[in-house]
Amino acid sequence: MSTAVDQVTTFKLAGRKSGHPNTRVQVGEIMVGGADLVIMAGPCAVESEDQLFEVAEILISSGIRIMRGGAYKPRTSPYSFQGLAEQGLYLLNKVRCKTGLLIVTEVIDSCSAAAVASCSDILQVGSRNMHNYSLLRELGKLQKPVLLKRGISATIEEWLMAAEYIMKEGNNSVILCERGIRTFEPYTRNTLDLSAVPLVKELSHLPVIVDPSHGTGKCSLVPAMSKAAVIAGADGLIIEIHPCPREALSDGQQSLDPCQFSALTKELKAVARVAGRIL
Amino acid sequence: MSTAVDQVTTFKLAGRKSGHPNTRVQVGEIMVGGADLVIMAGPCAVESEDQLFEVAEILISSGIRIMRGGAYKPRTSPYSFQGLAEQGLYLLNKVRCKTGLLIVTEVIDSCSAAAVASCSDILQVGSRNMHNYSLLRELGKLQKPVLLKRGISATIEEWLMAAEYIMKEGNNSVILCERGIRTFEPYTRNTLDLSAVPLVKELSHLPVIVDPSHGTGKCSLVPAMSKAAVIAGADGLIIEIHPCPREALSDGQQSLDPCQFSALTKELKAVARVAGRIL
Amino acid sequence: MSTAVDQVTTFKLAGRKSGHPNTRVQVGEIMVGGADLVIMAGPCAVESEDQLFEVAEILISSGIRIMRGGAYKPRTSPYSFQGLAEQGLYLLNKVRCKTGLLIVTEVIDSCSAAAVASCSDILQVGSRNMHNYSLLRELGKLQKPVLLKRGISATIEEWLMAAEYIMKEGNNSVILCERGIRTFEPYTRNTLDLSAVPLVKELSHLPVIVDPSHGTGKCSLVPAMSKAAVIAGADGLIIEIHPCPREALSDGQQSLDPCQFSALTKELKAVARVAGRIL
Amino acid sequence: MSTAVDQVTTFKLAGRKSGHPNTRVQVGEIMVGGADLVIMAGPCAVESEDQLFEVAEILISSGIRIMRGGAYKPRTSPYSFQGLAEQGLYLLNKVRCKTGLLIVTEVIDSCSAAAVASCSDILQVGSRNMHNYSLLRELGKLQKPVLLKRGISATIEEWLMAAEYIMKEGNNSVILCERGIRTFEPYTRNTLDLSAVPLVKELSHLPVIVDPSHGTGKCSLVPAMSKAAVIAGADGLIIEIHPCPREALSDGQQSLDPCQFSALTKELKAVARVAGRIL
Repeated sequence: MSTAVDQVTTFKLAGRKSGHPNTRVQVGEIMVGGADLVIMAGPCAVESEDQLFEVAEILISSGIRIMRGGAYKPRTSPYSFQGLAEQGLYLLNKVRCKTGLLIVTEVIDSCSAAAVASCSDILQVGSRNMHNYSLLRELGKLQKPVLLKRGISATIEEWLMAAEYIMKEGNNSVILCERGIRTFEPYTRNTLDLSAVPLVKELSHLPVIVDPSHGTGKCSLVPAMSKAAVIAGADGLIIEIHPCPREALSDGQQSLDPCQFSALTKELKAVARVAGRIL
Repeated sequence: MSTAVDQVTTFKLAGRKSGHPNTRVQVGEIMVGGADLVIMAGPCAVESEDQLFEVAEILISSGIRIMRGGAYKPRTSPYSFQGLAEQGLYLLNKVRCKTGLLIVTEVIDSCSAAAVASCSDILQVGSRNMHNYSLLRELGKLQKPVLLKRGISATIEEWLMAAEYIMKEGNNSVILCERGIRTFEPYTRNTLDLSAVPLVKELSHLPVIVDPSHGTGKCSLVPAMSKAAVIAGADGLIIEIHPCPREALSDGQQSLDPCQFSALTKELKAVARVAGRIL
Repeated sequence: MSTAVDQVTTFKLAGRKSGHPNTRVQVGEIMVGGADLVIMAGPCAVESEDQLFEVAEILISSGIRIMRGGAYKPRTSPYSFQGLAEQGLYLLNKVRCKTGLLIVTEVIDSCSAAAVASCSDILQVGSRNMHNYSLLRELGKLQKPVLLKRGISATIEEWLMAAEYIMKEGNNSVILCERGIRTFEPYTRNTLDLSAVPLVKELSHLPVIVDPSHGTGKCSLVPAMSKAAVIAGADGLIIEIHPCPREALSDGQQSLDPCQFSALTKELKAVARVAGRIL
Repeated sequence: MSTAVDQVTTFKLAGRKSGHPNTRVQVGEIMVGGADLVIMAGPCAVESEDQLFEVAEILISSGIRIMRGGAYKPRTSPYSFQGLAEQGLYLLNKVRCKTGLLIVTEVIDSCSAAAVASCSDILQVGSRNMHNYSLLRELGKLQKPVLLKRGISATIEEWLMAAEYIMKEGNNSVILCERGIRTFEPYTRNTLDLSAVPLVKELSHLPVIVDPSHGTGKCSLVPAMSKAAVIAGADGLIIEIHPCPREALSDGQQSLDPCQFSALTKELKAVARVAGRIL
């Protein structure tokens, strides 16, 4: 498990080769995996044009350049809000064109992959689809960065193998995202496995970011876990924010409001410095 | 949780309504969910024509009428054997036409769903795809029974909600399949959750079968767990067998050889009788 | 893992030696681990003399000869009912002397071990104490059968090693008891791991029984899981019953009432027969 | 779960009362739970006088004032090294008297509690004994700080209730210690649940420290997780170090060598500063 040992026998493409530098994934003018600490933030789901432009303003005023927001929302119940779909993509693209913000959004099947790709800058594979190898192969054929979330009970090995599926098709721009694993603990939505960050850094050359919002399910825990993730070596964070979390159509309990987010970004600057990162 | 309480508020279509009879899913001339104990058996993966016809003979001589076999194999590593794909479907269909055996095989994406449906009698959704809602919706539009495996760490609620996704599109022929959940125990591949059988019977009117092969990962445990599943109320079993398990291209350790399978089916007859089932 | 391989290199005393017969633990005139299916039943906690004698009558009328009942109750909260302690032991002993029923009751520390031993026939080590090696060593020095429950998240290996701690001190009368493990599933209190039964039979010569009451936490699931345990190879069952479960001071939700218990024992007779057991 | 809500209805003594200050536990001249970041370090097991004095020197040269070291070692196998017992206590006391270092060491049963207390400054309850309520009650009667490790699969609620058992007997000097929980992930020994730190701070007024050594099981992950714990709000750390990890009688793989430890303490100073702590 030591960095001295080549990991390429197990993970041919995603594995760290001794002495090999970290991979940096280019998203617009931003490098994920380099010296910059990369923050992505936004609502769980795209709800309306007003909501998106309000969020865009918050991001811009905090110096954040990547917006997250789901147009397609995989939900446990088919009767829950499933996202605005094409209309959501249209709105994301509008924000993208008008503000210059980069967009990360989830792709849930091969059929809509091209449409999603045309409206966004990073294609997110959600936790539920990490084992969906047909989708991974499809994304491997595109030339677009992929944010690969860890499956809800995926081992580190399975997660890196999922990256391998994408890379094998020719797309090396994979960003890993730790988002909590399923355990017996009921207080938190998931158990955020921060040890995955230094462990993945040993095993792989790929960048890894952390999602403290899904990882904990509680907005009160997001600031502490965001800062801890950065110190543990994460290359970035993906954080849920909402202009008014109480009115969110999904995941309101884990979303920061504009005030909380602004306070957090200030704190993160100091933490990034100690971690040798620039924010 | 009692049977006296309607479950249709939570699970609109899959939920048990007080007094409502069990759903029986028709597969050819076989009814899954009725008095018959339904056994499905066959290799993990389709490997060759010879292999399939050898297995067919074993099944026929044991009175088994549904053959399992994967043409598309989702594997953790992209470098492992991924199944014979179209060629595998062709072979399954050949066996099906020549022997009259019914076929259950896995469908891994929407693109190949129609092809798989044309060569088989039950469409299997594997554990890795239980949360793949796009695929579930697609299968809901077909008029073909679906075998819905429980996700590797899916709660009972998530599993029934996955059935709900299929049924909401108009396909009520859903057979649930418990196949073990992921726990901390390293001796077994998964922990087979047999309590899911009576619990699902309380919550839902859908038939439920058990996969003791993936559920344990060890052929030595398959006979005991097969019999226990039947006594616990399962409507059927799906069991991995191979003419020569040592030479299997996948899952050899959990496959029964012809002798073991023949011995098991004999024992199951007596167990089925006590459980009020016919085999 | 095969029975052909000696397990005594890993588990010196508890491990199965190829060809070695099963250990039978003598409790009064009863043999646990032989042809008889051994049922132990009774309330979670000793509550009163009336309650115990009511239960005794139920047991006797069903032909059951071992009563369970806790005088010392380890509870998550120090503010919950902790059992009647010495008074509970006194009542258990009174039932024992007057009815001839054998008693299994929990011992929670070394200080009270001798007192518990003098009033009972089997010393139960609860799930919370499976890793309490000081207590295990103490029980190893007594000449009394020990019922060793699997820890709430103990691996099979840790469980057999706990037996090893007892046996190393000279007490070979260890009965293992599977009682469910902690998983992510919220519908059941624990996930009853029935595959542990045939697995322990491969690895060890010790008898193993199953607790479907704690294993599921729901009385509606107890009958199905009791029968499944017997078919899976369990040497016995330990079942919670209460004259009036709704009024139970602890674990009422998982206790059978006299009617349900009587119906279950009848069903178990048929199941035992198929399993090659006598009840 | 918000800090605005009193937690004393659930946790009468350990629960945070709105507006109530944090509890600070005094150990010699050190306050755990105040502004100081408290580091405890030392070997897993006391092995020899030389070893202990070597470690003492390392600690003193790094400004660390609390030494950890086990005289009684609960081990999965009864055939593994079980610690030097009384001889180990004697050696710990010798170091304590000669160097002025404070000692934290594990107590495994009531019998030896007084002896352990007389040779140490903090009584550690190990993960395996968190549910051993008899032991907790006994420690509640002593006037000695208790380091209460989280059980290997204990929920946060069970953990705080264990503290409640100690406090109910009159001992309020309880320090909680997160040390990783059991999950399905095989790369790490446990999954360190850092979200437990801010969560416990919301629910309780008790100090909480983190054990990154057991929490990960890999020395290469200890520095990152130590720093992350501090940023997440931990009041301290307990770290395994060994003069020569390769020769350690237990847990060598997760122990830092003197060099690694010295480097880590330097890094921790900068991290503590950002976290508003003094080291």
